[in-house]
Amino acid sequence: MNRPYILVTNDDGISAPGINALVTQLRKIGDIAVVAPDSERSAVGHAITLSDPIRVSNFDKNGLWKGYAVSGTPADCVKIAVGALLERRPDLVVSGINLGSNAGINVIYSGTVSAATEGTILGIPSIAISLTTYTEPNFDYAAKFATKLAKVVLKRKLPEKTLLNVNIPNVPEEEIRGVQITRQGMANFAEHFDKRIDPRKRVYYWMDGEKEEIEMADDIDDEVIKKNMISITPIKYDLTNYKSIDNLKTWLPEFNLNE
Amino acid sequence: MNRPYILVTNDDGISAPGINALVTQLRKIGDIAVVAPDSERSAVGHAITLSDPIRVSNFDKNGLWKGYAVSGTPADCVKIAVGALLERRPDLVVSGINLGSNAGINVIYSGTVSAATEGTILGIPSIAISLTTYTEPNFDYAAKFATKLAKVVLKRKLPEKTLLNVNIPNVPEEEIRGVQITRQGMANFAEHFDKRIDPRKRVYYWMDGEKEEIEMADDIDDEVIKKNMISITPIKYDLTNYKSIDNLKTWLPEFNLNE
Repeated sequence: MNRPYILVTNDDGISAPGINALVTQLRKIGDIAVVAPDSERSAVGHAITLSDPIRVSNFDKNGLWKGYAVSGTPADCVKIAVGALLERRPDLVVSGINLGSNAGINVIYSGTVSAATEGTILGIPSIAISLTTYTEPNFDYAAKFATKLAKVVLKRKLPEKTLLNVNIPNVPEEEIRGVQITRQGMANFAEHFDKRIDPRKRVYYWMDGEKEEIEMADDIDDEVIKKNMISITPIKYDLTNYKSIDNLKTWLPEFNLNE
Repeated sequence: MNRPYILVTNDDGISAPGINALVTQLRKIGDIAVVAPDSERSAVGHAITLSDPIRVSNFDKNGLWKGYAVSGTPADCVKIAVGALLERRPDLVVSGINLGSNAGINVIYSGTVSAATEGTILGIPSIAISLTTYTEPNFDYAAKFATKLAKVVLKRKLPEKTLLNVNIPNVPEEEIRGVQITRQGMANFAEHFDKRIDPRKRVYYWMDGEKEEIEMADDIDDEVIKKNMISITPIKYDLTNYKSIDNLKTWLPEFNLNE
C-alpha cells in the first residue's frame, strides 16, 4: 500500500504544541499536509467564513515541517485544504491534539471536532483528538495513540457519515487502562456571568462555567475518561431526531393553514 | 394560563427585519424579551465567546419594542439572557426569522439553529425559523406561522432534548401547500475558492459554493420546501452515532496498548 496522505489540522492554531506532536508521530506512517488556523480558534463551533476573505500564508515549524496558516476557522481549514491548497485528496483528516477535553456537550462547541466533521462531510475518514487537561499536557503519548488509531481507521474504514471523537486522559502511558467505545455524555454547563465595569464605566461580562454532571452512566465519554481510559465516540452530522418524527406527525392537524 | 414569556433571538442581528416581524406577531400571544447579536453573525456554527468580554447594550426598535444587543454569537445571546439578563426563565425560545434556508447541511453551520440548540440545552422548548430566500422576503407570513407553531409547542411540549428547525418557503400565503415533518437532508456543498490578489499583492480567497443534491427523498427538508410546503425537522444535540457502536467495539482488540 502507498503511504497514506494525511491532512492535519486543529483549533489551537498551527503554532500549538499539540499539532506538532501529532505531525511528529503521523509522519512515521504517512505523508502529511498541515493546514491549520493562524491563531487559536477555540469554541468556534462549526463556523465557516463567508463574509470575509480568507488569507493563507506559509508556515515553517523550525525546519521540522511546513504547513499553511489560514485566517479562518478549523472547518475553513479543511474546506480550503481540500478545495484549493492540496494537490491531491487526503486519505484521512486528523484534528488536534486539542488542549482540553472535548467530551459531553463540549462536542457541539468544539473547533477540533468541527474540523473532523468537515472532513467527514467531504467524504474523508476523520478523527478528532483531545487531551483532557489544560495544564502539563503529555502530548507525546496522545500522538502515539492517535497514530495507532489512524492506522486502524485506514485499514477498517469508518461507519458512513461518522467521525471518531477521541479523548485521551493526561496520565503517564503506563496508567492508561484501556480504550472504550462511548457515547456523548449529556452533562450541562452551569454558566455564570461575571459582570464588571471597564475604565470607561461601561458594563461587560465574562462567561464562565463548570460542567454539571446530570448523568453518570458507564458508557459516556466523561465517565470513561475519569477511569483513565481512552474514550472513542462515534459522531454523526445528521442531527435529525428520528425517534420523534412519528410523534410530531400527530401535530399536523393543529396547523390549519386557512385560519 | 398566564401569558408565556418568550425569548426571541436571531443571527442576522437585532436590527434585521426578520426579528422585527417575529416580535410583532409573537407579542400577540406572550410577553417578549429580545436578546440578539448587535450585528450579523451568520454561519457562526455553535460558537460561544470565551476569550473576549461580552458587551450588552439597550436597543430600542423605533419605540415599538426594546431589547438587548449583545456583542456575541446567537448561542451567547441565549446563555446570557437566561444566565444574567432576564428576570425570569423563558417558557420558549424562538430564533429567527433567518434570511435564507437552514435546511440540509446548513443546519450545522447555522447560528439561527445554534440559538435554538442552546435553549434546548438549557431545558427550554426552542424553535428556529428560517425563510428560504435571500431576496424579497415575505417575513409577515413566516412570523404568523411561527406564532401558530409557538402556540402548539407551548401546548404539546417538545420531545426530550429536541428542537424544531422550521423552514418556510418564500411564496404568497395562498401558495403554501401544507406542513411536513421532515429529516435533515444530506445535500453537500460544492465549494469553490476564488483566488484573488489584493492591492498590496497579497493572495486571498473568497469561499463560495452551491448545494449539491445527493439525495432526493420525499421526506427531506430541501425537497419539501421545493414543493412549497413548510418543513419542520426535529433536531437533537446528542451527536452519537448509536448504530455504529457495536461495530466499533469489534475494533478494540486492535488497540494493544503495550505495543
